[in-house]
Amino acid sequence: MQPLTLRMDERDNVAIVANDGGLPAGTALPGGPVLLDKVPQGHKVALQAIPAGAPVLRYGVAIGFAKQAIEAGRWVHEKLLEMPAARALEGLPMATVTPAPQPPLEGFTFEGYRNPDGSVGTRNLLAITTTVQCVAGVVAHALQRIRDELLPQYPNVDGVVALDHAYGCGVAIDAPDAAIPIRTLRHISLNPNFGGEVMVVSLGCEKLQPERMLPPGTIAIAEAGEDAGLDVVRLQDEAHVGFGSMIDSILRQARVHLERLNRRRRETVPASELVVGVQCGGSDAFSGVTANPAVGFAADLLVRAGATIMFSENTEVRDAVEQLTSRAATPEVAEAIVRELGWYDRYLERGRVDRSANTTPGNKAGGLSNIVEKAMGSIVKSGRMPIAHVLPPGEKLRRDQRGLVFAATPASDFICGTLQLAAGMNLHVFTTGRGTPYGLAACPVVKVATRSDLARRWHDLMDLNAGQVADGAKSIEEMGWALFRLLLDVASGRRTWAEQHRLHNALVLFNPAPVT
Amino acid sequence: MQPLTLRMDERDNVAIVANDGGLPAGTALPGGPVLLDKVPQGHKVALQAIPAGAPVLRYGVAIGFAKQAIEAGRWVHEKLLEMPAARALEGLPMATVTPAPQPPLEGFTFEGYRNPDGSVGTRNLLAITTTVQCVAGVVAHALQRIRDELLPQYPNVDGVVALDHAYGCGVAIDAPDAAIPIRTLRHISLNPNFGGEVMVVSLGCEKLQPERMLPPGTIAIAEAGEDAGLDVVRLQDEAHVGFGSMIDSILRQARVHLERLNRRRRETVPASELVVGVQCGGSDAFSGVTANPAVGFAADLLVRAGATIMFSENTEVRDAVEQLTSRAATPEVAEAIVRELGWYDRYLERGRVDRSANTTPGNKAGGLSNIVEKAMGSIVKSGRMPIAHVLPPGEKLRRDQRGLVFAATPASDFICGTLQLAAGMNLHVFTTGRGTPYGLAACPVVKVATRSDLARRWHDLMDLNAGQVADGAKSIEEMGWALFRLLLDVASGRRTWAEQHRLHNALVLFNPAPVT
Repeated sequence: MQPLTLRMDERDNVAIVANDGGLPAGTALPGGPVLLDKVPQGHKVALQAIPAGAPVLRYGVAIGFAKQAIEAGRWVHEKLLEMPAARALEGLPMATVTPAPQPPLEGFTFEGYRNPDGSVGTRNLLAITTTVQCVAGVVAHALQRIRDELLPQYPNVDGVVALDHAYGCGVAIDAPDAAIPIRTLRHISLNPNFGGEVMVVSLGCEKLQPERMLPPGTIAIAEAGEDAGLDVVRLQDEAHVGFGSMIDSILRQARVHLERLNRRRRETVPASELVVGVQCGGSDAFSGVTANPAVGFAADLLVRAGATIMFSENTEVRDAVEQLTSRAATPEVAEAIVRELGWYDRYLERGRVDRSANTTPGNKAGGLSNIVEKAMGSIVKSGRMPIAHVLPPGEKLRRDQRGLVFAATPASDFICGTLQLAAGMNLHVFTTGRGTPYGLAACPVVKVATRSDLARRWHDLMDLNAGQVADGAKSIEEMGWALFRLLLDVASGRRTWAEQHRLHNALVLFNPAPVT
Repeated sequence: MQPLTLRMDERDNVAIVANDGGLPAGTALPGGPVLLDKVPQGHKVALQAIPAGAPVLRYGVAIGFAKQAIEAGRWVHEKLLEMPAARALEGLPMATVTPAPQPPLEGFTFEGYRNPDGSVGTRNLLAITTTVQCVAGVVAHALQRIRDELLPQYPNVDGVVALDHAYGCGVAIDAPDAAIPIRTLRHISLNPNFGGEVMVVSLGCEKLQPERMLPPGTIAIAEAGEDAGLDVVRLQDEAHVGFGSMIDSILRQARVHLERLNRRRRETVPASELVVGVQCGGSDAFSGVTANPAVGFAADLLVRAGATIMFSENTEVRDAVEQLTSRAATPEVAEAIVRELGWYDRYLERGRVDRSANTTPGNKAGGLSNIVEKAMGSIVKSGRMPIAHVLPPGEKLRRDQRGLVFAATPASDFICGTLQLAAGMNLHVFTTGRGTPYGLAACPVVKVATRSDLARRWHDLMDLNAGQVADGAKSIEEMGWALFRLLLDVASGRRTWAEQHRLHNALVLFNPAPVT
């Protein structure tokens, strides 16, 4: 077996082992040391002797300090590393780096659904917005009836989605932090994949009243010149006599929206109408080597094409804050990054934890020693363009907020995905090393494997294999272009594996306020 | 129309209007004042002049102080009331009241499923425990296959339930407060309605590893003398090639448990094996007058029969803390009440709110002016017996913890229900005035309407009409007995309305720790 190791930066004193199954002790690395330990795939080997207390460098960054002297050829696992303290949020370089300008990328298009507000959907879905968990059972029943009885009559509608959630009542709705879940729900119901059609199912007595979730003026005009108003089915309305009448009301209102949705057709729109959210989950040491760099390359292409691309995951960028603030387009953007990450630091402190709460057993098994190393591999997804905007959690991007966006969200796959939906995402990219069947009902998710082994085993769950980069079969650039083209195909209607199996996860709200 | 008003205590200077549609101004109350305002149903009328600053008394308790002088016959709505401060948790009467001993109630039984650990199920369900939200889509797919293909072969099994949730990863799992959601999930999977059969679907890399959720020794012995061990399907296991193989693994394991569950039969067991959780939601002014007193009467019957009955909802008992601590069976129980409510006070303070965050627009429309009035009507569900035990959130009752239990949970319907499931609940009672289609997949929910109007309109959602008390058709005692007998029937297999329509809500965990 040809030993294959990957070093990210010329300053690095460790490299990771790329071979499937790792490498045995005694293996001589070409131009490097002989392995003194068996090193698992994705794990680090010391390329040179590292004295006790000296930095262990990966991505050219100190991901930790050696707790003891480490000989060249040793397996550098997480127990040998002392994690550095988090970089203070004061005195950061603010908008100091201006990336070389890139030529615009023109002529790329996809087939999308143009909405009344100018945004573009990649799917044509009926969404049923709910104000409160109380109605979830009734809505699930109605949803099945709509799928079985109504959708066959409306062949141009791709599906129906219940926007159900744990919020709406039994929560401290006037707490300062309650603004986050409330605006998240508001903005999800306005996601471009729902065509500007909003129908709400409410119980009646809940704290989150429909008018509070969607105040007058927030709903796009459905038909030219016509204010659709707020279409609410309230289960407690006196007109409802019996369970069947509640279901009938929901089906009747669904028909009104299905009629309009069914008249829509895909049309050719520029790639600039993509609003792509990127995320990683079940990460391993390959995430930052194969899939995330390919996503970063594609991110640059998207920005050059005039599109919007969001990266997120506060705890996974926190240790790279210096890279973010320096790459901010303006000092105001840099300050917004500091403000969001500072708010999150304090949020974690209230719960008596810090950013190191992020890494998982799977991350560590996959070779990621700590959150610093994980963050360095995670941040790569953002590419090299200037950071143009910062979006607080639950907020929605304006149509003029294009380019690279830092959408400040927790790293939890579901909370991040939910908040990116609220931001207006119409296409989702998800990289994974350990493997996850992640999906969203509201938006197609393109899943990118970091390793060929995973892509082979999960052949009908992974949409793209970035492991080809580690295999030497493809360059980062080639993978980035392949992803970019796949995104245009999926945006045009090509179904992802998760869509084919109808796999989707729950909406999970970020609610930093108390429940009651 | 005969004016009908309800006064709860001889000290009260207000009464509530019971008539459907309320009473018009000018109505002369028998032996009372003439109404100066139209008073809606469930709302309060001043029986005598109340000077500015004087207490407004209901249930013999000051639910507020008059912000201005209130004439006899006026509608006493929430804007006229200044809410009292919360009772300090120091200097409370501790176990000072000894309720008169009641004779044991003997000879009542139900037909239940006896479990290996001695507990009794009221349903015979296969539960699929999940460690993390990541697997929810795959489990939902498997669940449908199990329903369609396997359940018809196992006619003695009542159904299959996915225990899915938002926890498991992307959470600060080592934060001090993380113990609550983790033990909640552990204990739900051990609920008596699942027959001691535990199968787990795990992703593989998640923070909440199966062995952390269910450490060795926590699972009941499934077959006599045999330790079943932990049965885990890990989606990331290398043996899984393709999506279909994951589904096959889940179905194969499901069969093992279905075989055992299918051999079980109902047998006659004493009523003392009931573990009943009580809750109210969508409350109105009648909740504390009709349904909750009937539940309280049934609670006393259950305690006399040797059963376990839990009441909960921290913010809805906080203003009645004095009644609880004085009624504690021992000073230790009283101290535990103070500890749990004090912890919750501080939890709310961290989010910069207090107990007054509880009431909803629906509560107020239904006549409940504030949380004090709501609490006085809520606490009635607990009956008059001594409080024998206090259970922290997510903990499970031991088999020897019988009688009346205060299970300290938030008041959110779903969080409270989820925590009561973890406590070991095998039957759920839910009272509602405004109406809610609430249900749980894991446990039958008996819904009790507070008003006849609701019971008539929601004739196929409400299982019992306690509004008959306000109509004068039934006494509290009669309703309490009717509920007690209905509980035995439902425990024996009679299906509730929610079960007939297959309505159920999500499991919602109480996670006071941060997400990451």
